Parts: sequence; structure tokens; C-alpha cells
Amino acid sequence: MNQALSKSPLSGVSYPVPTEGDSEGIENFISSNNSPVVAVQGLGFVGFVMSLVVASSQKPYAVIGVDKDSIDAYWKIPEINKGICPIVSSDPLVSELFEASLQQGNFYATHDSNAFKHADVIIVDINLDVTKENNSDGDLLSFDVPLESFKKAIESIGSSCKEDVLILVETTVPPGTCRKIVYPIIVENLKSRGLDASKFKLGHSYERVMPGPNYVNSIKNFYRVYSGINAQSADAVEKFLKTVISTDEYPLTRLKTTESTEMAKVLENSYRAMNISFMVEWSRFAEESGVNLYDVINAIRMRPTHSNLMYPGIGVGGYCLTKDPLLASWSRKNNFDNKKLFLSERGVEINDKMPFYSFNYFKKAFNIENLNNKKILFLGISYRSDVGDTRFSPVEPFFKFCLNEGADIKLHDPFLNYWEETNSKVEKNLKKALMHKYDIVIFSTSHTIYKNSKLLIKILSQKTNIFIYDSIGILNHKQIKKLNKKNKVKILGRGDI
Amino acid sequence: MNQALSKSPLSGVSYPVPTEGDSEGIENFISSNNSPVVAVQGLGFVGFVMSLVVASSQKPYAVIGVDKDSIDAYWKIPEINKGICPIVSSDPLVSELFEASLQQGNFYATHDSNAFKHADVIIVDINLDVTKENNSDGDLLSFDVPLESFKKAIESIGSSCKEDVLILVETTVPPGTCRKIVYPIIVENLKSRGLDASKFKLGHSYERVMPGPNYVNSIKNFYRVYSGINAQSADAVEKFLKTVISTDEYPLTRLKTTESTEMAKVLENSYRAMNISFMVEWSRFAEESGVNLYDVINAIRMRPTHSNLMYPGIGVGGYCLTKDPLLASWSRKNNFDNKKLFLSERGVEINDKMPFYSFNYFKKAFNIENLNNKKILFLGISYRSDVGDTRFSPVEPFFKFCLNEGADIKLHDPFLNYWEETNSKVEKNLKKALMHKYDIVIFSTSHTIYKNSKLLIKILSQKTNIFIYDSIGILNHKQIKKLNKKNKVKILGRGDI
Repeated sequence: MNQALSKSPLSGVSYPVPTEGDSEGIENFISSNNSPVVAVQGLGFVGFVMSLVVASSQKPYAVIGVDKDSIDAYWKIPEINKGICPIVSSDPLVSELFEASLQQGNFYATHDSNAFKHADVIIVDINLDVTKENNSDGDLLSFDVPLESFKKAIESIGSSCKEDVLILVETTVPPGTCRKIVYPIIVENLKSRGLDASKFKLGHSYERVMPGPNYVNSIKNFYRVYSGINAQSADAVEKFLKTVISTDEYPLTRLKTTESTEMAKVLENSYRAMNISFMVEWSRFAEESGVNLYDVINAIRMRPTHSNLMYPGIGVGGYCLTKDPLLASWSRKNNFDNKKLFLSERGVEINDKMPFYSFNYFKKAFNIENLNNKKILFLGISYRSDVGDTRFSPVEPFFKFCLNEGADIKLHDPFLNYWEETNSKVEKNLKKALMHKYDIVIFSTSHTIYKNSKLLIKILSQKTNIFIYDSIGILNHKQIKKLNKKNKVKILGRGDI
Repeated sequence: MNQALSKSPLSGVSYPVPTEGDSEGIENFISSNNSPVVAVQGLGFVGFVMSLVVASSQKPYAVIGVDKDSIDAYWKIPEINKGICPIVSSDPLVSELFEASLQQGNFYATHDSNAFKHADVIIVDINLDVTKENNSDGDLLSFDVPLESFKKAIESIGSSCKEDVLILVETTVPPGTCRKIVYPIIVENLKSRGLDASKFKLGHSYERVMPGPNYVNSIKNFYRVYSGINAQSADAVEKFLKTVISTDEYPLTRLKTTESTEMAKVLENSYRAMNISFMVEWSRFAEESGVNLYDVINAIRMRPTHSNLMYPGIGVGGYCLTKDPLLASWSRKNNFDNKKLFLSERGVEINDKMPFYSFNYFKKAFNIENLNNKKILFLGISYRSDVGDTRFSPVEPFFKFCLNEGADIKLHDPFLNYWEETNSKVEKNLKKALMHKYDIVIFSTSHTIYKNSKLLIKILSQKTNIFIYDSIGILNHKQIKKLNKKNKVKILGRGDI
């Protein structure tokens, strides 16, 4: 039997997934560092950067990042240990801190959960996903929160951790998870190992991480909310966070229960998702009544009480806003035996339907029957401006709708040369991407490079008879006027052009 | 036949409603002022203060306030002309500006629409109400926007205005109203009077008026959005507003169409109503899961992107938030022949149901079967803190639920001695209100006086076996602890007590 391989999407190198543990590697690392050990479970977007923040803190910590020995995840471990950064980020601090940790030798990655044996602090930064079933129109038919792999990850901590460890859950979880799931698993495991189950500390705190140019600072230099399963736990979390976060400048907020911080996190994101979904209907209303909704929103946002009003767009993407309201609703139903959160669920559904709507709007606005053989350029595939992050990007369903009709699509994104989810090549160079002949150009992500590019407007205005669909309102009045001379521009939520 | 009487709720004096015009009064006023004439149609909460703002502007204007010769409205006219302020406000500037206008003699009130003959500018500040049919649970069964009296008011302008008048609509209207209703009425009337219907200017702009201690400034010193039915109209609106609003400090924003500003206004208020309704479900969730939602919200609001998150409460009141989302939805259906605004309508409905929910929560939390003969004190009846404004106050349905069960109710509000909508006496003095024996004390409006009152906490903590229901989260941890020694405190959205 061949050994399974885990291929790095960044370097392209494949690594054999190990079938054995890594005790030697872990022990070598521990013995070469004479510091308290912090283990970070999960080396994804958040866990990796959190590891760097801990490794670079004032207090000397030896940081062990732990991830799964799966085909999907394993490649990160050898690459980190070889000094290859496993995430693409526009924040130069990410590679700076990574370099520093390599030089200092206080960051090690492993797939072996025996690492938890040595840890004084274990930070849980694994994913907890929602499975959604949407129909092709985007209607949310059903969803679930499968807890198996989360529980297994907590088991792997409980089966090897010290009895007085501090376990700090940073994963976004359904409220009630720390008390109803994590706590009993750890207690049971400690007891079965003949240990004292009253000594460990369990807390919850969440990052407000923002992929992009301020990635590291969104973890290190930002307000944090935390809690503990009991006072002793909360104290331990506070003590630890004060050594890694800039709490003088960004004071910590302690909440009374783990349910409170768990709820705070999903409420934050549900609020944002709700505010976006609220604007969806108004975009349609604006289109129907000849109103430029961007102008209206700008006028309203002058009021400080209304500064959080959102702009309309092609859809909502990213890892959090597309699922956190559902985590909350699931929790209310399952952990507290009550009704669902109607508005929060409905908000997610409306947002999920946005790419479907904007696709139809786009075809109707340009009077296109069918996209067969149409040459289309997408400007931007990330879900958010100025990041190379395509997780749940709303561009994906839009792209697939076009593909299904037989369109001939080219992609540009300044932060990516490959789109994992759709297995497509991406051109990084804007000039090169624009060189080809197109029928349709779609502004799909509001990267700054598109906003300020004279080159882009110049090249586009030299083309004739192309349709320019600005799904995110990136073009200003003057640019539209210029482009409209030889072409046709349409923008979501703008009834005035 | 006896002449109909219009009774002032403030002075108690009744005035015979006139059956004739007021040409002499108007002409005397005009001739004693040698200034451009601004007529303000509607002398309600907004129109009266707008009149004062215009009368006190740098540019000398002669201001005529026009209201109806109806039993409800007429009393304001003789009282204004006698120097009695027709609104109660905690803003000292209201009476200051009123005094000044009396001294200057440049503000006159009349019921006679002949006043519009003389006006260079006519500001429309009348109400446009929504009729709602809710069942006893608060479900929104149906609603409508009856336009008859609004149209009649516009007719009364069209039938007497100058042909080159500037008509500035400030009423919150369904988007499309200026173009589809106001404009044709004026054109038709001018034509039928043999006048040139191309010269008048029609614009729309809205106040962001906030009853309370900054009433006048919320009109005079705040950002304004405006538009005109054509460029000439927009220019005229701009020129006029610059003479009455502090536009240097708070620049004006011009939008392209009257639909745009009409939409901006209802969107502002719908956004706020939506954000409140969103919190309703989370309040319930917090109660069920033992979370103090106020603490959670305070923690979240440290993020600038989340500063507009609302606190839970007994309900949504006031003139705007309870109807503006419906005006918008009605407009989409009727003026633009499309679907309703689902989320906006649903938001209003959820908010309308809040008093019903909080009443049930209250009874359940204290395990009260029936309120028959229970002695209850309401602290606050206004819909908003620090104002004496009971329009659509959520305290009203809550009060009626209690009344229906036979409760013996006393009311306190520092800004009122009479509650018009329920025809009840109100005690203004807090000490006097607290003197009696009560079974239940309800914090129903978050007036500052309740927040900072040591007296209140002292008296309440001396009482024994009373239920204290804080429906708006006015009590802090320390106060609750103190009160809970001899009594029982319950707060909406707080599962932790």
C-alpha cells in the first residue's frame, strides 16, 4: 500500500502523511527550550498567526503547533518546520514574526497529540464548521453542526494533558459548548487516567482576527473578551492573555460565564451578517426606483449612529459571517432546547442567495440570454478586499453560474495565483489579465488596486462594446461616465445608471 | 349649534374652532414684517421647532405656521399667538427661541391656508401616518398608508401658492411621493388657476430631529440631505437651507432625485428598527442561557464596527421607527409595483410584539398568575429617555395589559403630569411617587433621573417583598445586589439574575 500524500497548495511539494508519532521531535524541541510550553491546536488562518503572536511575546514561551495527520492538513507541519509560511498574507508582520520564531527556535509544528503532555497552556484554534444544504437558488434547506471531529480533538487533549493545564478555547462555538461538551470530556479523561479532575482550568476567549494587511495586529493589538468555567479558570486566562496581548492599550473584558463569551462572538458576526442581509432588499428597491444606493448610504453614514450601515454587494463570504448566525441558532435549539433564531437564520439565507440574485440581475441588466462562449474577466476572487482569502467567497457561486452556461472565464486577483476551491489558475498581474479580448468584465472584489488604477480605466475605456458589471460599487461617477461612452456599465443597487 | 371646542392639553383652556378665515391676521402680520415669508405647514413636534429655527436664522424671515382648524390641532394656534409654547421639551433653547420670535414679532400662527398666498417658501411638516392592525399578541395583520389628508394638505398649498414658490417637503413619505403625488397636484392646481406651472420649485429634505435636551440643535446643527425634483429646485433648496442650518459645520449632501432623499430617510429609521428587532431574539436567548446580554453588548460595542449594536428593552416607540419601515415597504409595493420589504416589515412586527413578550416574561419571572389589585408603579412612560414624548410609547400596551388584569397603577415621569393616550394622571415628583405602598415597581423608561438616583435605590431597598422589574437594564450589578436582599429583581435579557 502506498503511503498517503499531503500536497502543499503553496509550494506544490507532496509530503507522506506519517503513520507514527513524533515523540522524539517533540522532546528535542522541549529540551532545547527551557520555557513554559504553549500548544496551539489547529494551524489554520487563526491558529498559525496566534502561534506566532505567542512565540513573539515578551514572556519566553515554547510554542508547539499541532495539526492533523490528514491529507488536507498535514503538509503545513513539515513546511513550518522547514521555514515555509503556510498562509499567504498581505501583512508583512506574518513572515517577520515567523522568521523571528525560526531564529529563536521556539516554534515547532507536529501532528502528534502527545505534544499536549508537555503543555502548560493549550489553545484550541481548530475549526467548527456548519454543514449547509442550499438549493440552486440559495434557499437554505437545512443545516447542521457536526460535532464529531471537534469532540475528537478535545478528546486528544484530555487523553494526554497535564492535570493542571489551562485549556483556552478560541474556536467559535455554539454557546454552551465549553460547559456542556469540552468540560465533561476533559473531566472524564482525567478521571480515567486516575488524575485529579478539579485542577485544570478551562476558559474561552476569541480573536477578532481580520485577514489582510493588519492580520497580526488584529490578534495582538485589539480588544479581547474572555471568561472561565470558574473564577480560577478566568484568572488563569487573564494572566496568560496579559503576557501575549497588548492589554495595556486594549484592556481585556471579563464576562461571567463561558456562555457569555461564546454568545458575544456569534452575536458580533450575526449582527454584521444581519446588517448586510438587511441591505439586500434595499438594493433591489433602489434599482427599481432609480436610486443610487451608494450615494444614499454615504449620506446616511455621516450620522455616527448609522456609521455601520453596509454597502450592497455580490454576496457575503468568508469563514465567519456565513456560519456563525447558524451556530447561534443551532445552540439555542440544541443546547437550550428552544426556538431557532429566526432573523439570524433568515439573514444567512438572504446573504447566501445574493450571488444568485446578482447573477440574474447581471444577465437581465445586459439583456444576456446565455453566456455560452462569452469571454469574461473576473476582477477579484477573494471574499474581501485586499486579502488572498477565498473561503466561501461569493464570487465562487457566481463564477460557477457563468461556467455552467459555458462562459470562457479568466481570473485576476493581485493576491493569488491559484484558486483552490475551483481548481483554477489566477493571473496576478493586472495588465496581463486585461490584455485579452473580453465581452464582459466583472468587478467582483473591491481590492484597492482596482479603485485607484488609472491603467485599468484607460484600458477598459479603449475597449468597445464590452459589458462592465461592477457588483460592488467600485467605480465612481466620473469613471462610469468615461466607460459608458463606448461600453455599458451596470452596478448592483444603482438604479441611476 | 354650539361651536366646536379645541382643548389645550397643556393649559387646559378650550378654544372655539373658527369657522372663518384669518385674512386680516395674516395681512397684519405680513405688513408689520418686511421680510421674505416662510410658511410652515404643520405645527407638531417638528414643524413648530422648524418654525423657530427659521424665525431665528441670520436672514430675517417672517414665519407663518399653519395648522388645521380641527378639534385636535386648533388650540396650538391661539396659544402660539398668545406666547404659550405648544410642546413640552427639556431643551431650554425651545422656549428661548420662542421668546425671541415673540419679541421680534416674526412668527405668527394661523389655521388659514390663505397664508400660502404670501409665502416665498413653504415647508411641509405635516404627519403622514401608517394605520396598522395588530392582534392582541402584536402580530401585524395588515397596514395601510392613507394618503387622503396628505393630498388635501398639498391641495391647499397648490390652490393658493405663488407660481414661483419653493415647496420643501420635510415630511417622511413613501419614496416616490414627491414626484408621483406632490408634483402633479401642484402642477394641476397652478394650471387650473391659469398660472405657469414650470416655475415652482419642489424639493425634499428631512430633519433628523431628536426630541430631548438637544432638540433645536438636532435640526439646526446637524447634517442634512436634500434633493429637488429638478436642478433648479435642488439649487433653491440648497440656497434656502444655507440660510437656516449651520451648513458650514454640517455640510449639506445633495442627492440626485427626490426618491433618493425620501429613501434615505426611511432607510435610516428602518436600519435602526431592524437593529432593535434583531436584538429581541438574542434577549430571549440570553435569558434562556444564563447570559447577561447587557454585559455582552458592552463588550462588543468596544469595536467601532459594532458600536451601533442596540440594548434590549420593553419595546420600540416614538413616531418614526414604528412606521417608517412600513412606509418604505408600502412604497415598494404601491409606487414601484414590486414585492414588500420582508425584513423591514418583519422588524416592525417583532418590535410591536416586544411589550407583549416583556409582559409575559415579567409575569413568568415573578410567578404572577394575575395582576388583579396588585399595586404597581411605572417609572417612566415616555418612549425614550429624557423626553416627555409618549407617542407610540411601548409602555402604553404594557400598561394596558396590566390594567386589563385589574392592576392598581400609579405613574411617574419627570417630564409629564398627564398621559394623553391613556387619559391618566402622572406624578412628576419621584419622592412623592415612591411614597405609596407597592407590590411591583417597573422601570419602564431609562430617564437619567432613575439611573443616578441614590434616593430611589434607598427607598426601594427599604421596602420589602416587592418585585422590581427593570425592563430596560437601568440597574447596575451593585444596585441589584442591594435591592435583592429584601426584594426580587428581574431584568429583560439578563439570564444571570
